[in-house]
Amino acid sequence: MANPPQVLRGMRDFLPDRMILRHHVTAVFRSVFERYGFEPLDTPAVEYAETLEGKYGEEADKLIYKFEDRGGRAVGLRYDLTVPLARVVALYPELPKPFKRYQIAPVWRAERPQKGRYREFWQCDVDTVGTGSMLADAEVLAVLYTALRELGFRQFTMRINDRKLLKGLAAFAGVPEGEEANVLRSVDKLDKIGEVGVRTELMEKGFEEEVVDRLFRLLSPGEEGDPLARLRSELAENADAQEGIAELEQVREYLGALGVPEAFTRFDLSMVRGLDYYTGPIFETVVEEPRIGSITGGGRYDHLVGIFSGRDIPAVGSTLGLERIVDVMEALGLFPEVKTLTQVLVAAFDPGTVPEALRLAAELRQAFVRAEVPLAEKGGFKKHLTYANNKGIPLVALLGPDEIARGEVTVRDMRDGSQHPVPRAGVVEWVKARQGA
Amino acid sequence: MANPPQVLRGMRDFLPDRMILRHHVTAVFRSVFERYGFEPLDTPAVEYAETLEGKYGEEADKLIYKFEDRGGRAVGLRYDLTVPLARVVALYPELPKPFKRYQIAPVWRAERPQKGRYREFWQCDVDTVGTGSMLADAEVLAVLYTALRELGFRQFTMRINDRKLLKGLAAFAGVPEGEEANVLRSVDKLDKIGEVGVRTELMEKGFEEEVVDRLFRLLSPGEEGDPLARLRSELAENADAQEGIAELEQVREYLGALGVPEAFTRFDLSMVRGLDYYTGPIFETVVEEPRIGSITGGGRYDHLVGIFSGRDIPAVGSTLGLERIVDVMEALGLFPEVKTLTQVLVAAFDPGTVPEALRLAAELRQAFVRAEVPLAEKGGFKKHLTYANNKGIPLVALLGPDEIARGEVTVRDMRDGSQHPVPRAGVVEWVKARQGA
Repeated sequence: MANPPQVLRGMRDFLPDRMILRHHVTAVFRSVFERYGFEPLDTPAVEYAETLEGKYGEEADKLIYKFEDRGGRAVGLRYDLTVPLARVVALYPELPKPFKRYQIAPVWRAERPQKGRYREFWQCDVDTVGTGSMLADAEVLAVLYTALRELGFRQFTMRINDRKLLKGLAAFAGVPEGEEANVLRSVDKLDKIGEVGVRTELMEKGFEEEVVDRLFRLLSPGEEGDPLARLRSELAENADAQEGIAELEQVREYLGALGVPEAFTRFDLSMVRGLDYYTGPIFETVVEEPRIGSITGGGRYDHLVGIFSGRDIPAVGSTLGLERIVDVMEALGLFPEVKTLTQVLVAAFDPGTVPEALRLAAELRQAFVRAEVPLAEKGGFKKHLTYANNKGIPLVALLGPDEIARGEVTVRDMRDGSQHPVPRAGVVEWVKARQGA
Repeated sequence: MANPPQVLRGMRDFLPDRMILRHHVTAVFRSVFERYGFEPLDTPAVEYAETLEGKYGEEADKLIYKFEDRGGRAVGLRYDLTVPLARVVALYPELPKPFKRYQIAPVWRAERPQKGRYREFWQCDVDTVGTGSMLADAEVLAVLYTALRELGFRQFTMRINDRKLLKGLAAFAGVPEGEEANVLRSVDKLDKIGEVGVRTELMEKGFEEEVVDRLFRLLSPGEEGDPLARLRSELAENADAQEGIAELEQVREYLGALGVPEAFTRFDLSMVRGLDYYTGPIFETVVEEPRIGSITGGGRYDHLVGIFSGRDIPAVGSTLGLERIVDVMEALGLFPEVKTLTQVLVAAFDPGTVPEALRLAAELRQAFVRAEVPLAEKGGFKKHLTYANNKGIPLVALLGPDEIARGEVTVRDMRDGSQHPVPRAGVVEWVKARQGA
């Protein structure tokens, strides 16, 4: 036999030990999303190519998996979950607004695979469509905060900024009209190439040194006091900036009422976010340790969801990076040491006692305990213990002829090696208590 | 603006009201699968075309979505979850055996779309790889039974048969060696075209009338007594048949111990299952009302999972048909009347009391109550009630200046129109009690 077929580069199998972690994370996401009133949506993996193309510029278009289907239609695999959302909003105008949906699903990009960059990866998106209220923006931030806290994160920073403020700030610094986005794309690299790097790039782009100086002075956070108050007075003449500041102040007020502690947010003027389509507040979450880039990214984008509807529709949302969050949680030891979901192995001593073991397993399952029975045709006590040990199953319930005669079950706790005779009628309760289940 | 972009034919959006139903069903599946020791697996949607092709015959190959990726590789969208399982088993020989996995994921087939047949649909597969023990077969049946019962099905029949028995039976009837599969493909149509239709087809295929007569006599269930006992004596000379009968008897014994009532199973000699790859017990589940075909299908297939490993690897499993199960549950009224997951709308009377409403919503969410706040910039009491009514949110908690002054919240139960003054400090408990949450 030749070598077994491989997985395509940049795509991955998730074996059970990985899937258990991923399910743990997405279960928390879903629970939190739904607690804030976001409801699930799913859309096809395959869309008309025309639907997918031209939404993110040429660079992105090159990354779309495109092909002709059997009917000769030009189709493609979805590149993200935002364009499908825009299509859904256009196709079902009867959906009540604001439409609050989440979608947890894979997307495909024909990228060059590299560490942390995949050709198939899952996006977890939460978005509110149809309202310009800053309460929606604050709510998305509160969702991120709650989800990360419930996953066990003790320290993280949600960096918050505003595109209107940035636009006003650039204009105030003397950046010519229409060039703001160009400037901001360079500023976005501050984390990567530092102030000197960004300055050099801006000069190379032809911006005057004086303008660049003014820009950096405005961007640098004041030593003390409220940076928003400082900017409000400094940029008093600029309408864009004033609007952006008002948005951020409103978000801050709502965040307080929603119970998001100030220690977890930071207004960060130099945070720009890569994509051009944001129009208001923008936000991303970073952890200090390990350094891995942002684990969430989002903001308000009032011109994108309406692309198929023929009019602007306000929207705000965020992606939670499942892949990175799983990686960070592993690095921080936030996952319980679980290799299997099974809580008890119910083992018979010999073929004659198998039916007794099956009955006990059935009882445990009815009580929502996850119970496995050995399926191997042969094998005694020792083999069962080895199996439980290899799989990491914490408890082994043993039914031999002696136990059955005594009306008992012997339960072995694999974690400390202790062995316990338990009356047959009380096994379910005993196991649940031992498990904390 | 032109018409909004459409969904490709045979593919579907699942809006929240549908997704809530689908999530309900898959949550029960997962809970049951995991309680029996099956663990989650996920694989890429895109595989090398070579991996996908030639596993199911030419007809199926035509239905695979195939294309060239940007690197010129011939790839395709997965056609089912069994071939990826076979690839995983070959690629990770270190996986402990028996390997019990479930996978709930979409598959793609370029079929002609028609009622109940889609180009993208979800499969829910549960399989045990690496043991020939009939306990594994019985366990899969017990999983199906438990899942359907927990979904609320009161009546269904798991039809059970055995390919070895069928092979022996065909040989015993006089079907020439090597022609058994050909005969069984016709017998498989009994439900659709009746005995006369099958007889005609078999004669047209060139089988002798005498053989066909003998076949039908053997296939018809005896009036009384245990059909397996009857066949055991009648087919005493045929090794295949004896083996098949022994398998079924063992499955029956295990099913009893696993707590599956006999009323939900039926040994059905004329049930063949379409696919050629089954090698032992086969099973499918049907409901009387509504008539919709089988809602589960599976069996033992000892030659398929090893295709990439270069040796036979025994395996048994079943698919649960998510699409059909959702349809049947709707027809039978097994879903709760739920349009939304949100349990309470927490509404402020005016902008001034919004922060109070946000604080109450945050408290409710912390207690795992799903609470929404109105995001519309304007709108009073009446608008909130209309929104809750349209969305089907059962409770509305109202915070006006009067309520706040009195330290109270007014909660309206939208289901009966009743209104209740609740002390602010006791709202969370009150809502949980009212919800049965």
